[in-house]
Amino acid sequence: MEKKNKKVNAAILIIGNEILSGRTQDKNVAFIANWLNSKCGISVNEVKVIPDIEKIIIKNILDMSKRFDYVFTTGGIGPTHDDITAQSISKAFKVKYEYHNEAFKILENYYGKEKFNDGRKKMAKMPRGSKLIQNPSSAAPGFITKNVFSLPGVPSILISMIENCKKYLIKGSKTHSKTLNLFTVESTISNQMENIQKKYDKFVEIGSYPFFRLGKIGVSVVCRSTSLIKLKMVNQDLIKMVKLKKIKILKTK
Amino acid sequence: MEKKNKKVNAAILIIGNEILSGRTQDKNVAFIANWLNSKCGISVNEVKVIPDIEKIIIKNILDMSKRFDYVFTTGGIGPTHDDITAQSISKAFKVKYEYHNEAFKILENYYGKEKFNDGRKKMAKMPRGSKLIQNPSSAAPGFITKNVFSLPGVPSILISMIENCKKYLIKGSKTHSKTLNLFTVESTISNQMENIQKKYDKFVEIGSYPFFRLGKIGVSVVCRSTSLIKLKMVNQDLIKMVKLKKIKILKTK
Repeated sequence: MEKKNKKVNAAILIIGNEILSGRTQDKNVAFIANWLNSKCGISVNEVKVIPDIEKIIIKNILDMSKRFDYVFTTGGIGPTHDDITAQSISKAFKVKYEYHNEAFKILENYYGKEKFNDGRKKMAKMPRGSKLIQNPSSAAPGFITKNVFSLPGVPSILISMIENCKKYLIKGSKTHSKTLNLFTVESTISNQMENIQKKYDKFVEIGSYPFFRLGKIGVSVVCRSTSLIKLKMVNQDLIKMVKLKKIKILKTK
Repeated sequence: MEKKNKKVNAAILIIGNEILSGRTQDKNVAFIANWLNSKCGISVNEVKVIPDIEKIIIKNILDMSKRFDYVFTTGGIGPTHDDITAQSISKAFKVKYEYHNEAFKILENYYGKEKFNDGRKKMAKMPRGSKLIQNPSSAAPGFITKNVFSLPGVPSILISMIENCKKYLIKGSKTHSKTLNLFTVESTISNQMENIQKKYDKFVEIGSYPFFRLGKIGVSVVCRSTSLIKLKMVNQDLIKMVKLKKIKILKTK
């Protein structure tokens, strides 16, 4: 399925005390956002990190699932007491939290009947009516409940599963980007950039980000648009401007 | 100032399209959260990432500044057109967006009168009545408006400024943590952990996180509490449990 020239958006909900405490550095946001944009033409418009507290999860699931086309949750779908994503989503959508037959079979087959203990069985419980997201690394599937996709928090496992989300997603127009890396400082080009941004208004989004490389200060000017033609036009305007100012361009992506 | 045995909380608001697009991997959340907890006894209870859009910034500043003791924003305080944090906060709190005399002097002094161009002057504009957060790396100060602390997005600059926030913060009780790294899998100890969690209820928060090290699978059991005594008690219960199960403890922090 594809929505031509249509904007499709998503939000990411990171469920995990370990991210909020600073113990763990999140890596899933950048990965999911890149994958959604490059593979599905879906933009991430909001990210939220919340603790493992049922009422907070419920509130945010309801709010985000209304405001965005898709919601991706990470974390809280393992076998322990602090894994409460599945039951919280069940409560949010007022559906039963119960064994998913197929998930139960996958896990029973993976662990073998003898080693299929209570903790492992818990990973087969999910909101009634959920569709499964297959997990090629460690068997325990993710699940899709309405427009909410629930994935694990461990990055390597999440990465191995993400392609299995694709068939359930309506695709939008891809956002393309072009980066100009300049050996200058932001304030030297800020007025000109603002004028170019105004000229292309909502068609192209221009962002500028300072960098430090090889002991030198520079600026990455990143343009993003769903229109390759507009992107090329704005890039030409920017190159013309920096040449006039005799600014060195480091590399063009 | 210190609030003894009191919970002081904060939220982090990351303002930046580059994080939402996945272009940039955020590093500020983990740093700020660790610093707030270890140096000030302040817990981060929510993190949000939003785009550089004025009305979205305004809405979130108003919402978060009401719900949390402190809000830390990162990003959007540089010299370019996409840096709109200061004017958005001014609008949110209905105060004038204007030159801050001291900030103006700091920047003029840093760049010299001749090189103090419009872009650089923009960094001296902030919500009326803001207090400055000194910046030892690149001069442009952060600012505090009511309970909102605005810091830059570049991690190295943010890190250099964070200590200058301390004197403006009321301190809470530090959350201590103890980690047990076990060579086992979560499902083997999930029931026992849940019972220990129930026993200590709201005094200690037990989280469990799978890890992969030296080709082996393990679980980090992280206990967090403001009470060192309770933390010790729960740790003893956990060690007793894992010894009974003949599980190898890797390292105790």
